Amino acid sequence: MGYRILETEDVPAYLRERGHWDDTDDIRVREVSDGNMNRVFLASNGDGTRGLAVKQALPWVRVAGPSWPMSPERADAEARAYEQVARVAPDKIPAVHGYDADNYALVMEDMSDLQVLRTVLNEGGSYGPDTSRRIGEFVAQLTFATSDFGMESAERKALIAASVSPELCRITEDVVLSEPYVEHEHNHWHPGLDALAAEFRADTRLRTEVADLRHTFMTSAQALLHGDLHTGSIMVGEREDAPVVRVFDPEFSFVGPIGYDLGLYWANVLVAQARARALGTVTDHAAQLRLTWEGFETEFRRLWPARVDTFFDDAYLDRFLARVRSDSAGFAGTEIVRRVIGFAHLTDLTTLPDPVPASRSALLLGRELIVRRAELTRTEDIEELAR
Amino acid sequence: MGYRILETEDVPAYLRERGHWDDTDDIRVREVSDGNMNRVFLASNGDGTRGLAVKQALPWVRVAGPSWPMSPERADAEARAYEQVARVAPDKIPAVHGYDADNYALVMEDMSDLQVLRTVLNEGGSYGPDTSRRIGEFVAQLTFATSDFGMESAERKALIAASVSPELCRITEDVVLSEPYVEHEHNHWHPGLDALAAEFRADTRLRTEVADLRHTFMTSAQALLHGDLHTGSIMVGEREDAPVVRVFDPEFSFVGPIGYDLGLYWANVLVAQARARALGTVTDHAAQLRLTWEGFETEFRRLWPARVDTFFDDAYLDRFLARVRSDSAGFAGTEIVRRVIGFAHLTDLTTLPDPVPASRSALLLGRELIVRRAELTRTEDIEELAR
Repeated sequence: MGYRILETEDVPAYLRERGHWDDTDDIRVREVSDGNMNRVFLASNGDGTRGLAVKQALPWVRVAGPSWPMSPERADAEARAYEQVARVAPDKIPAVHGYDADNYALVMEDMSDLQVLRTVLNEGGSYGPDTSRRIGEFVAQLTFATSDFGMESAERKALIAASVSPELCRITEDVVLSEPYVEHEHNHWHPGLDALAAEFRADTRLRTEVADLRHTFMTSAQALLHGDLHTGSIMVGEREDAPVVRVFDPEFSFVGPIGYDLGLYWANVLVAQARARALGTVTDHAAQLRLTWEGFETEFRRLWPARVDTFFDDAYLDRFLARVRSDSAGFAGTEIVRRVIGFAHLTDLTTLPDPVPASRSALLLGRELIVRRAELTRTEDIEELAR
Repeated sequence: MGYRILETEDVPAYLRERGHWDDTDDIRVREVSDGNMNRVFLASNGDGTRGLAVKQALPWVRVAGPSWPMSPERADAEARAYEQVARVAPDKIPAVHGYDADNYALVMEDMSDLQVLRTVLNEGGSYGPDTSRRIGEFVAQLTFATSDFGMESAERKALIAASVSPELCRITEDVVLSEPYVEHEHNHWHPGLDALAAEFRADTRLRTEVADLRHTFMTSAQALLHGDLHTGSIMVGEREDAPVVRVFDPEFSFVGPIGYDLGLYWANVLVAQARARALGTVTDHAAQLRLTWEGFETEFRRLWPARVDTFFDDAYLDRFLARVRSDSAGFAGTEIVRRVIGFAHLTDLTTLPDPVPASRSALLLGRELIVRRAELTRTEDIEELAR
């Protein structure tokens, strides 16, 4: 691999070399790595008035170590995704100050004043008035710009070629879109869910519908996606009395079906709702599916008149959006299921005093979303299912 | 571009240089360029016992000249497609003896003993007992091997990236999948079709359905296609008393929806049938749709147990094949329409004494195939429509 893996003490000199920070005497660095895959450092000056984040991809999965190798080229995908989003939704991602492709390192805005949305929700907090709507807008802005509606044909084909991401897509194809429905060593679950997990593995209808969603994931090159849009990839907070939303970690980015991004977020909303119900702390969960979709649809329709290819008419847009909604419901279902009986579970449910009842309802809801997705033509239908 | 454009007199030395032919004194060359795009030379020895074809892509469209520039890289796409087919269906393409990427030139089997299928049909000849079935098999063999069923995920993503073909896909997107439905300078038609052409342009239902097929063409990365599978891309004949079928000219090859290849062939069968009916020379046209589909489905199902990804189950295969059939019907419809009121027409109809009645039925059939494709779940339904 031959690149330079940064340690905490290397960061000041590194930031100076890359032209981000002159006075290396006035710089403090701490490692704040949190996700499964990468290292993150925060650099700040003595009086705390200046900060930068450095994120570096390692040639393995951080939490597993060198025994699970993983190409650091995922950082290229992340930098490319940030570049695309910066053109159309710069207010919804961290500012990227530079990407060092030789060392797979991004230098970015310090967001340590913000909070991870999952943490806020797990602690019983609210989404805030605008978060889900902005997430919907984010998906619309990124996907419209990189679809055949917003991007000229030749440029888009170049983007598809540049954005193939075999290794990370493979993880999703396996961990999300097949393993939970078959016997697999990765799978685990609470013993109280044994019977339901067995039912899911024996459910041939479910298996065929998941196969269909999986093939859509593999072949439907609609637009550039974030690829991992869960509530742990979103920071929220306030700056100068205004709400702030920042989507980060787009390393799973690839050109795929738009419903995958919306579905992942929806799944996380629904799981957070299951937790809140179990704890009796329901706040504003119920409205979030609708707000996300409204944010998405309103923004997509706002952008539509600027499409580069006017052969696509308004009647086609209606049909296209209905399909995105149905895909979103299906992918939301697969994401819920895998987070309960697959490889990587969500703290939303695992930290409940008794995770079984909420996990069971979540699984059943997931199944309905998958097998009935074609009928769920209105967001209200999905909300009703969730009630 | 800086590459060497071959003239007839250059071919002997070229074949010798490339190691294909030692004795350049015993070699005759004639140019037999026939398609719109490229030059083709045939080299043979004095007693006619040996022959080779040399096909070179020019940096423009051959029939138009340098005023219509076109990247010769289409020859790379063609060579790549031949390479993929050679692994799985070597008996259905010309033997490729070498590809010279520097000069965009392919050295191939001499097929001058065979006849172009369109020519055979236009002259009232028969398909032969096996042609359509083998074309169906060809599509199954190429597309299974390059789908997520036949090819491992990472290899397939590399193939998708290598096979993007912006310039040639753009031609199809424009000339086949939009221009005939709007006012465009490329369009022309027999004056007897004025009213029907105007009706098509005003038909909003048709426009939306074509938009849907067009978006599928642009985004559905199911498998590597031939991309231009009409009866002018197929040679037929006999060698040693056995029927021979050879598919050639895959320069439009790209990773797209499987139904596009089958649909193109179906459209050509249906237009040939319209011609034969007009002339009262109907032979074996009616059986060809079914034979093509049977060849395709039987071969795809034969290959299925060898799939690399067994999460896709038999129930999913049924659903997938039904969708391919519906796509095929729709793309067949668009191909018929564009060949009657679009840019490039077919001699099948233009050489009829009165092309209007046959062209009119063909257009109406094309429209039905497009708008009713979702209901056409059996090949018999399509045959019935064609009667």
